[in-house]
Amino acid sequence: MKSFKIPEATIMRLSIYSRYLNRLMQQGITTISSSEIADNTGATSAQVRKDLAYFGEFGTRGVGYDVESLYDSIAEILGVDKEWKLIIIGAGKLGLALSMYEGFRERGFKNVGIFDVDPIKIGKKAQGINIMHLDDLEQVCATESPDIAVIAVPGEHAQDIVNRLVEVGIKSVLNFAPRVLTAPIDVRIRNVDFAVNLELLTYNMAMEERK
Amino acid sequence: MKSFKIPEATIMRLSIYSRYLNRLMQQGITTISSSEIADNTGATSAQVRKDLAYFGEFGTRGVGYDVESLYDSIAEILGVDKEWKLIIIGAGKLGLALSMYEGFRERGFKNVGIFDVDPIKIGKKAQGINIMHLDDLEQVCATESPDIAVIAVPGEHAQDIVNRLVEVGIKSVLNFAPRVLTAPIDVRIRNVDFAVNLELLTYNMAMEERK
Repeated sequence: MKSFKIPEATIMRLSIYSRYLNRLMQQGITTISSSEIADNTGATSAQVRKDLAYFGEFGTRGVGYDVESLYDSIAEILGVDKEWKLIIIGAGKLGLALSMYEGFRERGFKNVGIFDVDPIKIGKKAQGINIMHLDDLEQVCATESPDIAVIAVPGEHAQDIVNRLVEVGIKSVLNFAPRVLTAPIDVRIRNVDFAVNLELLTYNMAMEERK
Repeated sequence: MKSFKIPEATIMRLSIYSRYLNRLMQQGITTISSSEIADNTGATSAQVRKDLAYFGEFGTRGVGYDVESLYDSIAEILGVDKEWKLIIIGAGKLGLALSMYEGFRERGFKNVGIFDVDPIKIGKKAQGINIMHLDDLEQVCATESPDIAVIAVPGEHAQDIVNRLVEVGIKSVLNFAPRVLTAPIDVRIRNVDFAVNLELLTYNMAMEERK
């Protein structure tokens, strides 16, 4: 693998190609061209070829790519060829929706705990996983060593949660709270901010109206 | 307003600055510097100044920005100074979580309908909004003229939904289904793909392990 920095957009597209290849496998399709991948993933065939070229030689000119071996290669690149343990903080509707999100489960992420502070929820199960009290976060992390924490708590509590996750050694955080969170440099936080995405749409609608 | 293309990253940061300014207003803070904005939103002060400079002159050198007037200016830029009507397709956990998402409501988005096909859900209310049958989508769109549709249905149904939304004239779609959807060029689709975000984290963890 080449050692220079791969663009984030390439990794995001690889994730999307990979899900498409997964669907092809389910349909029993064994070979695919870069232009078919492009047409079904919102990319161009040049992008598909360039994205893959960062990581080596795939496919055969004039024949295309073997679906299963390309899927396996991308899964390895993305690190989803192994099982990662995740925990979800917040058992509100969003946290519960995430616990059953098809896109997580089909890629083999293993949910090892859901945490909340609401006594009505604690002790119940979501997708077979116990909803535990937030007080038990540190102990469960010590036992289970989760790789990723998903934050689905109200904005005002999100930074406190990150601080506690950092203390127990979590290095990867997927944050759904509409706040910018701070953490040491070796902790990676991805923000999934619904409002930002919605406001990209309203910005463009407002621009159209001003024309 | 200058007419050249504003980077999408600028619009995304404006949305984040704006939420921070909103919190300052709630705390009664009236003046803020670009470096304070930067520190609280994960940006640099140079970025803050550059992002704002696309849209005009804000703030006073040595004094900073007036919080409320900067908030109002950004709200106008983002188009959130007016009310937009949205509909949500899918009343599963994710659709219901979205219907009550604090980040949507605080920006004045008006939910005018939630649609599903599950007879148990139809006729119930979510956040005071009736859950309606998907068969009524076209009629409700004709009456309410929603500006934005939020798709929170399983991946395999998402393209059908987009096709119907295009038919009724919806131009802005926020898609949470883990699929790449196609629509005519004048329809804007933003994808919020949880798995892509999660796999950016696993990619980096896998890279670390390979070192």
